[in-house]
Amino acid sequence: MNSSTLIPTPDNFYWPPSQNITSAKIADNAVMLRWDNGNHSKLHPLWLRDNCSCALCLHQVTRENLLDLRDIPEDIQAASVEVDAEGALCVTWLGSGHVSRFNPAWLYANSGLQPASPISAALWGTAQFSEPPTFYADNGLISDELLHEVLLSVCHHGIARLRDLPTDIQLVEDFALRIGPIRETHFDRIFDVISKADGDSNAYTSENLAAHTDIPTRESPPGIQILHSRVAEAKGGESLMTDGFKVAQDIEQEFPEHYKTLTSTKWCYANRAGPKDYRWEAPTIGLDDEGKLLEIRMLPFSRAPLQGSFEDIQNAYAALRCYMEKANSPKYQMSFPFRAGDLIIFDNRRILHGRAKFYPSTGERALRGTYLDRDDVLSKIRQLQHQFLLDR
Amino acid sequence: MNSSTLIPTPDNFYWPPSQNITSAKIADNAVMLRWDNGNHSKLHPLWLRDNCSCALCLHQVTRENLLDLRDIPEDIQAASVEVDAEGALCVTWLGSGHVSRFNPAWLYANSGLQPASPISAALWGTAQFSEPPTFYADNGLISDELLHEVLLSVCHHGIARLRDLPTDIQLVEDFALRIGPIRETHFDRIFDVISKADGDSNAYTSENLAAHTDIPTRESPPGIQILHSRVAEAKGGESLMTDGFKVAQDIEQEFPEHYKTLTSTKWCYANRAGPKDYRWEAPTIGLDDEGKLLEIRMLPFSRAPLQGSFEDIQNAYAALRCYMEKANSPKYQMSFPFRAGDLIIFDNRRILHGRAKFYPSTGERALRGTYLDRDDVLSKIRQLQHQFLLDR
Repeated sequence: MNSSTLIPTPDNFYWPPSQNITSAKIADNAVMLRWDNGNHSKLHPLWLRDNCSCALCLHQVTRENLLDLRDIPEDIQAASVEVDAEGALCVTWLGSGHVSRFNPAWLYANSGLQPASPISAALWGTAQFSEPPTFYADNGLISDELLHEVLLSVCHHGIARLRDLPTDIQLVEDFALRIGPIRETHFDRIFDVISKADGDSNAYTSENLAAHTDIPTRESPPGIQILHSRVAEAKGGESLMTDGFKVAQDIEQEFPEHYKTLTSTKWCYANRAGPKDYRWEAPTIGLDDEGKLLEIRMLPFSRAPLQGSFEDIQNAYAALRCYMEKANSPKYQMSFPFRAGDLIIFDNRRILHGRAKFYPSTGERALRGTYLDRDDVLSKIRQLQHQFLLDR
Repeated sequence: MNSSTLIPTPDNFYWPPSQNITSAKIADNAVMLRWDNGNHSKLHPLWLRDNCSCALCLHQVTRENLLDLRDIPEDIQAASVEVDAEGALCVTWLGSGHVSRFNPAWLYANSGLQPASPISAALWGTAQFSEPPTFYADNGLISDELLHEVLLSVCHHGIARLRDLPTDIQLVEDFALRIGPIRETHFDRIFDVISKADGDSNAYTSENLAAHTDIPTRESPPGIQILHSRVAEAKGGESLMTDGFKVAQDIEQEFPEHYKTLTSTKWCYANRAGPKDYRWEAPTIGLDDEGKLLEIRMLPFSRAPLQGSFEDIQNAYAALRCYMEKANSPKYQMSFPFRAGDLIIFDNRRILHGRAKFYPSTGERALRGTYLDRDDVLSKIRQLQHQFLLDR
C-alpha cells in the first residue's frame, strides 16, 4: 500500500490514492482546495471540524465520534491550512489550535466530487428472462467472488439462482448468515415449505399460489427471501417469478389512473389465523420521497376488508385486478422447475413469487427458506468490494 | 357466547354482537343495510364477494383466501339478500348461485361505521414526566393485564418502566419473546451493555452518551428497545430519556425553518468499524404520508459526512444542533437511576436515550437488552385485548 493510505479516515476502510491536492487556502471562511485533475472543492469549516478523525475526536476502535457537535463553536474558523508531505490536508483551528488531518482520497470521495453510483434496477419481463439469472457453485462451494455476483444480480434484477449446491438442511441458514443476521418474523425463523395438514399459511398446502410478496402484514416486510430446494420429486410445483417493478412501470404507461390508485389506496393485509394479529395498511405500489419505485406489497390470500367509500372500492378493485392480471400473465411471469440443490435469492419487496400446484402423491417436495433485509445485501456487497480492493 | 358469535368471519376473532341489521335490500347494484341504531351501509358487491368466509372461499385454518379476485366477475351482482334467523346477512350471487353469509358484528365494524381508534401519542417533556411511567411486577411476575398496561404506555408515552423484576440473565429475552420475535441486527441478538476494552460501539465504554436513537444506519431501525438492569453498583450512569416527538413538535413551532430542514435534509449514519458496512440516509425527523411524525433518527457518534453544497451544510448543521441542544436539555430530557431489577421498554424510533458517565472503579454495572419492532407491540396489544374479551 501507498503511504498515503495510512493517513487516517473516519472509517476503517482502505482509501487508495486518487487525486492529489495541488493547493489549499482559506477564503470567506471556507477551505478552498484545488485537485490535480482541475476540480475544486469549497469545504465548510463545520463539516471539516465535525469529520476530524484524530484519536481525541473519533474512537479509534468503534470509529464513532467522541467529539460532540455541541462542543464545536458555531462560528468555527480555520486559522491555517496546508498540505503536508504525505499529501494530507491539515487544518489548524482558530482558538483551540487543534489540528485536523484529512486523507485526500477520503476527502475527494466525500465532498461531492465522486458521487456514489447506486446500483440501478434493470427491470425485466419474460422477453428479457425466461429463467432467473443463474450462477453455478463450484463443487458445491460459493466463493466470495461468486457471492458478490449473486448479490449484484439481486440488486439489478431482483433475483438470482444458484445451482449445484448440496441439499443439506443447514445450507440455507449458513448461506443467509454469510450475508447478514436472519430477519425473523412471526413465522418460523427458518421455514420448511412442505405440504402440511395444519399449516398456518396456504404456502403449506400443495395448491397453486398466485403471485405475491411475503408478509406485507408488517410495517417493514422482509426485504430478501432465500429458498433452497432440498427435495424435488413431486410433479408440478414450478416456481413463478414476476418483476413487480416492471409491472408497475408498464401500468404507469398503459393505465395511469390505475397507477395513481395503486400508489395511493392503502390495502390492509392481515395474518388472521390468530392468536397473533399482525396487520398493516399501505399502497400496493410504494414510492420513495422522489417518486421512484420503492416496494410492492401484495398478498392476495391475506387481503383484509378494504375501508373506503362505495366509489373508492370500485376503483381500488379495478386497479388491483389490473396489477394481479399482469403479475400472473406469461408476459411478466417466468415459470421454471426448482431442481434439488437450487437456491433462489430474491428481493421480496420487488419480485412477486408464486407456485404452480404440485402433486404430493407423485413424490416429496421440500423447500427451506429464510429472510434477510435489503440493506444486509448492500452491506455485504460493500464489504466484499472493500475486501477485493485490499486483496489486489 | 351468543349464537350469533358462531356466524363465520374472515378471521379467527370473537365478534360479540353489536348492532342488528333491520333491513337489507339491493339498489343500484349495491347492498343497502339499515342498522337498528339508525345507521345505513351501502356495500359494494365486489367487496362483499371478496370477503366471503365460507370454506370454499377461505381456508378455515389459515384464514387465508382461497378465492382469487380474478375469478370474481367484474360486474358481479347480488341476486337476492336476506337476514337469516341468526341475524346474518346472506347474499345469493347472480349466475353462480353461491351464497355468502356475513356476521353482522364483523360487518358493522368493517364497513366504516365503527372506525378503529388508533392509539394516540401523548407527547411529554420533563414538566409532564420526571421519570418514566412506572409499573410494578407482582412477586417478580408480569401478568397479562400488567403487560397490556405496559405496552399501552409504550404506545402513548413511548416508554414504560417495570420494577421489582428478578435480575436473572434470561429475563430480557423471555420478556421480549412474550411480545414478538427478536429483531436481530448486526450487533448481538441479546446485548450486554457493559464497559468493554474492545467494544464495537461507544455504548460499551463508561463515557456519557448524548441523546440518540439506535441503529439509524439501517433502512428500518429497530422499533422497540428493551433494557434490563441486572447489576447497578457503579456510581453514575443515570439513564437519560427524551421524547423526540415533543422536541420535533416544539421546533416546528419555534423554529419552522429548522423543522423544514430536519424533515428534508438526509443525514447518513454509518457503522464504520468494519468489516460490515451498514449505512442509511434519511431525514432526522421522518414524517408519514399525511405529514405526521413517524420517526426520529439521530446517532451523533455515527454521523457520516454530509453530502451537500456549502450553503446546505450551514443550514443542516444549525438545525441539527438545535435539535440536539433541546434533546439534551433538562426541559426535555429526564434523568433517573437504573435500579437492579428495573426494565425499560421504549420506542426507539421516537424516544432518544442516553446515559450519564459512570465510574467502573466504584462497582459493577450491567444492562442486558434486545430489540423488537413497533408492530410486534401492536399485535400483542390486539391479541391481549382479544383474549380479555374472550375471558369476560
